[in-house]
Amino acid sequence: STMERSASRQAKKKVVAVVGGGLVGALNACFFANRGFDVELYESREDIRRAKVVKGRSINLALSHRGRQALKHVGLEEKIVSQGIQMQARMIHSLNGKQSPIPYGKKGQYILSVDRANLNKELLTAAESYPNTKMNFDHKLQDWNAETGLMTFVRSDGSKEQAKADLIVGCDGAFSAIRKQFLRRSRFDYSQTYIPHGYMELTMPPINGEFAMKPNYLHIWPRNTFMMIALPNLDKTFTCTLFMPFEEFEKITTGDEVIEFFQKYFPDTIPLIGVNTLQRDYFRLPAQAMVSVKCNPYHIGDVCVLMGDAAHAVVPFYGQGMNAGFEDCIVFDEIMDQFNEDFSAVLPEYTRVRVPDDHAIADLAMYNYIEMRAHVNSKWFIFRKRVDNILHFLMPKTIIPLYTMVTFTRTRYHEAVKQWHWQNKVINRGLLLSAVGAVLGGSYLLIKHPPDLSKLIVSAEEMWDRLVALRTP
Amino acid sequence: STMERSASRQAKKKVVAVVGGGLVGALNACFFANRGFDVELYESREDIRRAKVVKGRSINLALSHRGRQALKHVGLEEKIVSQGIQMQARMIHSLNGKQSPIPYGKKGQYILSVDRANLNKELLTAAESYPNTKMNFDHKLQDWNAETGLMTFVRSDGSKEQAKADLIVGCDGAFSAIRKQFLRRSRFDYSQTYIPHGYMELTMPPINGEFAMKPNYLHIWPRNTFMMIALPNLDKTFTCTLFMPFEEFEKITTGDEVIEFFQKYFPDTIPLIGVNTLQRDYFRLPAQAMVSVKCNPYHIGDVCVLMGDAAHAVVPFYGQGMNAGFEDCIVFDEIMDQFNEDFSAVLPEYTRVRVPDDHAIADLAMYNYIEMRAHVNSKWFIFRKRVDNILHFLMPKTIIPLYTMVTFTRTRYHEAVKQWHWQNKVINRGLLLSAVGAVLGGSYLLIKHPPDLSKLIVSAEEMWDRLVALRTP
Repeated sequence: STMERSASRQAKKKVVAVVGGGLVGALNACFFANRGFDVELYESREDIRRAKVVKGRSINLALSHRGRQALKHVGLEEKIVSQGIQMQARMIHSLNGKQSPIPYGKKGQYILSVDRANLNKELLTAAESYPNTKMNFDHKLQDWNAETGLMTFVRSDGSKEQAKADLIVGCDGAFSAIRKQFLRRSRFDYSQTYIPHGYMELTMPPINGEFAMKPNYLHIWPRNTFMMIALPNLDKTFTCTLFMPFEEFEKITTGDEVIEFFQKYFPDTIPLIGVNTLQRDYFRLPAQAMVSVKCNPYHIGDVCVLMGDAAHAVVPFYGQGMNAGFEDCIVFDEIMDQFNEDFSAVLPEYTRVRVPDDHAIADLAMYNYIEMRAHVNSKWFIFRKRVDNILHFLMPKTIIPLYTMVTFTRTRYHEAVKQWHWQNKVINRGLLLSAVGAVLGGSYLLIKHPPDLSKLIVSAEEMWDRLVALRTP
Repeated sequence: STMERSASRQAKKKVVAVVGGGLVGALNACFFANRGFDVELYESREDIRRAKVVKGRSINLALSHRGRQALKHVGLEEKIVSQGIQMQARMIHSLNGKQSPIPYGKKGQYILSVDRANLNKELLTAAESYPNTKMNFDHKLQDWNAETGLMTFVRSDGSKEQAKADLIVGCDGAFSAIRKQFLRRSRFDYSQTYIPHGYMELTMPPINGEFAMKPNYLHIWPRNTFMMIALPNLDKTFTCTLFMPFEEFEKITTGDEVIEFFQKYFPDTIPLIGVNTLQRDYFRLPAQAMVSVKCNPYHIGDVCVLMGDAAHAVVPFYGQGMNAGFEDCIVFDEIMDQFNEDFSAVLPEYTRVRVPDDHAIADLAMYNYIEMRAHVNSKWFIFRKRVDNILHFLMPKTIIPLYTMVTFTRTRYHEAVKQWHWQNKVINRGLLLSAVGAVLGGSYLLIKHPPDLSKLIVSAEEMWDRLVALRTP
């Protein structure tokens, strides 16, 4: 078992400090404890298992293959999956209230809506269960020294504490304190980009003790320049997230304006959320900003490495933020095997391997930021998704939809993007050739067998409906 | 005069703190003093007019139109120009030692090689000459508060000093301490990108008391993946700057290897620099890194604004770093007139106007990083430069070479880039049509008037030489 494995390796006694007890930090503590290191986990906040809910973070998250693989590694997959809600498809809500599902993958493939706080608690409990792990809550990193590895923490009572480690793993999120030391060094590439949209969370309560909408979907209201999505929770509520440019949020200042706005763009949700809840939730917190962070390298010498949002915060539109962070842990773990836990070899290799993948998923998430709110509405988009799915069904190893590669496999992100560009070229060329072929073939038939002209008068509308009727299997 | 103007406005007594006494900081102090503000200039180092030379900065710089306009504004243009050396053209050195000039613009247009340290000293003396300016050297900014405007400085004796100002102007360079406060705020976009090349400065001494090469040129040795340039100094030396990927620098570890390397790539410079100087200079300092910094916004509320490298460090390949920084001062000054010195209106407008221009010059400098070391060698590049120059001569208001717009006008950088894209489209289309026309016309002539075949046998080489012989006016 993992406990025995950890015990057998304890002889090493190398100390790994994991800074940050969020999702990636807590999971990483398990990975390092599993290898027998002495793990010290430092978290600036109180233990969330004993404190109240933290404001201003997303309430639920989409867990998919990469994240599940990492959880499996530390024996948590089944438990977490059992606490999640399956979402097999996007459910697109038109302005007129019509709902149309677009499956995520093949039949039986789904992503999971999981509760962030609960997942975090489970991971902390798992980390704590290792005898070689020590949890240090209420330890806010103030500064650290890249030469000596000495870290200084401040406690909420103002006292300071210092600690050293053989390896410091910065899992302290998009605004990482560990990363500040990287920024002071030469030849560290860094970018932080805020998108013009903010987000706001609204709760859709159960109706008669049941989900107000179909639960096994990720609901989307695409409205071009903005959009709303909703993910189901175990308590039969939905968490709706409204994404909109900040200046649009700022235009709405009264309860009446909130209702007016929803009447105009999301009329189907008003009876479901309820006027009062809507007006209360809208003004509870201001809209939150979203940032995309990229950097390179991820390590300093053999003493420090960044993982998760600290290394690559992404915008939330591909549902891969947590999954990418969890996959970081597996990738690092694989390289630890490969280089026999020699940090001076493992850290540079981790940077070399992981940077292009994280940059690829950051770019994809930014791309999906446009796709989800605008393209998802277009008939061409839906048509292409269908074509991709049919081709995937016919040639499962040659044509794999991008979403499938990203969400249901561990294909390296940057390779998924490469493959996608290739597929798009091939498929678009194929569609063009088919169109040309159809016109030529049709012309030939028309000349050889002149049709009954009265039957030819079909509108473009009718034509489209006929095409759409040719549904995927 | 400027002194009278400054005195007449002193009634305001608003305090402007200029943080950073480098080129842009010292110039900016003049601009604000000129408007009658009480100016406090803070510089972390000692007064360079009394201290020794600072290591690791470029020794000379290319001053062009934008920079000169800013100097003119504070009455320094003539003086600085008289201390500079005119460079009318690039002088391209081939591997075989052949030198070919490529003019920067029209006859009479030139850029100036100026000494950084001397320019900085002149600017500090100019700033100090205003009665309403106070110079504070040996004041290193430790921290400042964006709410209160309170700044904390550390002196070299360890003592601390605090100061307040109505406006803080961060001119403290690419690694700005003022900018750190911006990074802590939400919705601040920031990127720092290091290029894989480093640079190293080598001195080419005078020969028999005279310049070792023709002085009125910016000498370039383009070698595709790397290059060397040389700018003349008043003391008849040249400062050669070698740009090369860091790993190439690291490969050269002995004096013999230095000579071997120069023998291979820059043989004509060995007798000019001298074997001993070359071997000594090469190991004097390690290669220096080059960073490109972009950010947005440039201001916080009505209390702080970034200018110069603090807002937009660029790589040095367009010779616009200092010129763009100096132009910042003019642009800010123009907006101060427009909005009657109301900081709450001036600062956002400055961000709105200046960000796209600074981002454009940062991108152009990055583009030129490739052009200078690689394209400048290509016949197509030289051909296109000639075509541009001829067209500019024929249609001086319609077709303006990009380099001319950037270097010899105050056309907004981002508009210069737009215009350039348009021109390229038009010119390339024109060249294509001419080529087609020539082929058609030629075919017609060949058919109508079959030529003496023996005269037709010209090699492509010969053809090229004939084209090249059609030199620009």
